[in-house]
Amino acid sequence: MTQINNPAVVSEVTELYLKYEQALCSNDVETLIELFWDAAEVVRFGATENLYGSAEIQAFRQARSPVNLEREMFNLKVVTFNDNMAAVTLEFRRKVGEKERLGRQSQMWHKFSEGWKIVSAHVSFLPD
Amino acid sequence: MTQINNPAVVSEVTELYLKYEQALCSNDVETLIELFWDAAEVVRFGATENLYGSAEIQAFRQARSPVNLEREMFNLKVVTFNDNMAAVTLEFRRKVGEKERLGRQSQMWHKFSEGWKIVSAHVSFLPD
Repeated sequence: MTQINNPAVVSEVTELYLKYEQALCSNDVETLIELFWDAAEVVRFGATENLYGSAEIQAFRQARSPVNLEREMFNLKVVTFNDNMAAVTLEFRRKVGEKERLGRQSQMWHKFSEGWKIVSAHVSFLPD
Repeated sequence: MTQINNPAVVSEVTELYLKYEQALCSNDVETLIELFWDAAEVVRFGATENLYGSAEIQAFRQARSPVNLEREMFNLKVVTFNDNMAAVTLEFRRKVGEKERLGRQSQMWHKFSEGWKIVSAHVSFLPD
């Protein structure tokens, strides 16, 4: 039987996710890279780009402008499966130019022997 | 140690994914519902809507117009973790009105005692 939302696992992943969110909004590239799986198989679909493998993701992080990254997060959901798999989803509001836009983010996390890593991620805006 | 891409697991999930793709393009609502996790915790971020829980996802499927659902899929990637977790990502081209648009889809699958189910999904278009 799959154990859903064991409280200890949910709190472990939630804490890591909040670390990721803080790193994202402060452009802490080292932490962002550390929290993603370092493998050719990792995928990140961003708002405007499709990235395959950790080399592409790291290059994107390093090239990103560090200004106006703030966003307001809501509907954060952490759903865990046994002690090594989690789905983290959220919605956010963010200024893009002069407009406030609504976005969504999904991440799939897996716990390796070296710890929890994001193995697949997808970020997009809803149509205006 | 996490086992990545055990060939038997990859082929099991790929076969199920192709069943999902066919059901999507032929609006086989019953199969689409069967392949999603039936739980309050399942999330589906669609191109224009955010759905939480299987009741919202099923209502969306049942209300969807069955015309012009065809799409051309490319860059399908199935990445498996041990024998009960998989990330399925792909890109697609689809006509939306008169325009051809590029989209991306991410799904997280988990194998429960009753079989593999999609536990989180995200579909979006790249900006024009």
